[in-house]
Amino acid sequence: MMNMKKELSQLNYGIIGLGIMGGSIAKAIRTNILGTTDKSCTGKIIALDKNKDSLALAKNEKIIDESFMPEQTNQMLKECDILFICLYPHATLEFLRQHKNDYKDDSIITDISGVKALIQNDFDSLCPPNANLILGHPMAGGEKEGFAASKGEYFKNHNYILITQKNDKARKDARELLKKLVSAMGFSRITETNSNTHDNKIGFTSQLCHVVASAMVESAEDPEITSFGGGSFEDLTRIAMINAPLWTELFLANKEKLCAHIETFKKHMEEIQRLIENEDEEGLKNLLSDVREKRIQMQK
Amino acid sequence: MMNMKKELSQLNYGIIGLGIMGGSIAKAIRTNILGTTDKSCTGKIIALDKNKDSLALAKNEKIIDESFMPEQTNQMLKECDILFICLYPHATLEFLRQHKNDYKDDSIITDISGVKALIQNDFDSLCPPNANLILGHPMAGGEKEGFAASKGEYFKNHNYILITQKNDKARKDARELLKKLVSAMGFSRITETNSNTHDNKIGFTSQLCHVVASAMVESAEDPEITSFGGGSFEDLTRIAMINAPLWTELFLANKEKLCAHIETFKKHMEEIQRLIENEDEEGLKNLLSDVREKRIQMQK
Repeated sequence: MMNMKKELSQLNYGIIGLGIMGGSIAKAIRTNILGTTDKSCTGKIIALDKNKDSLALAKNEKIIDESFMPEQTNQMLKECDILFICLYPHATLEFLRQHKNDYKDDSIITDISGVKALIQNDFDSLCPPNANLILGHPMAGGEKEGFAASKGEYFKNHNYILITQKNDKARKDARELLKKLVSAMGFSRITETNSNTHDNKIGFTSQLCHVVASAMVESAEDPEITSFGGGSFEDLTRIAMINAPLWTELFLANKEKLCAHIETFKKHMEEIQRLIENEDEEGLKNLLSDVREKRIQMQK
Repeated sequence: MMNMKKELSQLNYGIIGLGIMGGSIAKAIRTNILGTTDKSCTGKIIALDKNKDSLALAKNEKIIDESFMPEQTNQMLKECDILFICLYPHATLEFLRQHKNDYKDDSIITDISGVKALIQNDFDSLCPPNANLILGHPMAGGEKEGFAASKGEYFKNHNYILITQKNDKARKDARELLKKLVSAMGFSRITETNSNTHDNKIGFTSQLCHVVASAMVESAEDPEITSFGGGSFEDLTRIAMINAPLWTELFLANKEKLCAHIETFKKHMEEIQRLIENEDEEGLKNLLSDVREKRIQMQK
């Protein structure tokens, strides 16, 4: 049985999927927890990916200690005290279904999926009998992809969301350990909330923004538009260098909440449009002053 | 008569309105052209503002050499070889109307207004008889305001737009000199286009982005939303810390072009919404792949 009092530096970390997120998690653990030369660290990082080059690169860079191919999954899982499943949402669900009985006793299994309903709907039946499943979402990333683009520092001053469950008391020690780990990795704020609230808020702060940025790029008359750019368009649409298969999954898995946000957003667009069309100078000035105040309050 | 062959370091620069843009222009000229100690520079920077503190601060920081209050405008104008009018659009128009006959012979008069139609409509009647009026738009800035927030480096690698006129040949030397100055200030790309194209493109890259960011902030359910933020919402809405009176003027002065862009944008939002509602996985993936390619092509 894993002793929850064990030091973070003595645990074995497993990463399933060594892309930009899995790679960044590995790097954050390597840099902040295990170090590269400290002999007192008995813990290690092991990773699994279908891409051999990613694994080889991560080993060359001394980020991971051991690598596994998909056919070795069960062998790897038996070694991991804390396992990060860094796959797309449907692949995460499938992984949890397949490996329910394959984890190390008392280990912690967590994910990074950007939409939770998909997994939450089956949560009880996905829970491994001998390990702790805790859903999570590191709120960081960017428009890049792959291990080569990963960075441990991505997480500095970023948010981490941990999903709450009805019977969280049973996983109290495991949750505390995961929170300790996440803080040590560099995340500055851990928000605990249920799956439904997560999907609603993320549908707004993340997914709606990606829809808006995509619609802006689609609206551009020509790619030469940036010779008229002062930074606003560039900043707003950077996230439109989007990973199409991943975001298609995310949008569809959160369809109802996302479409509700799109409706609200369109309503506010039309409110501003009406004020402009009606040349309602006072109304427009009041609305923009209100926007300014609201946005300033949102500054951390 | 100003010799167009004169070195930039020998000219007198005038700034009307020492806010974030006027201040940044003054700083860029001070740093890149006049220097602080070089005795061979006989040129100077003089500024006019209604705010005495801004002027005093700029003098203390050795950015400007002399300061003027609004009642001394005519006295100041007689000294300026190149004058930057850094006021809001309507105030710029009013300034040009009032001072048509007050400039130094053969000097260059330019503005920074974000919408050009307002001034362009009266261009011929606003042209001073003894000086060169050339409309321009430095494409830089941010959500900040005031001289204290100004920075000469804002302009590095940014775009400058110079408005073309039917009879530009008459101002050929003056245009060349202004372009030389703008490049020396740090701008990396000068785009020359007519007022109509400017307002159309800026209505998209700048104004539509500000409308979208404002509507996003208005759509937020609560200011705590940023505890669920991963950077997308923050980046997209930074420009919503908007200068309400200025942007009200800009939106209204470009009403028709801006509203046309809003319509196009809404159409593309609805296209994406439809794909999500219909769970059209292939269609969504194709659209997002297209967006990604388009956006990557827009990278400088």
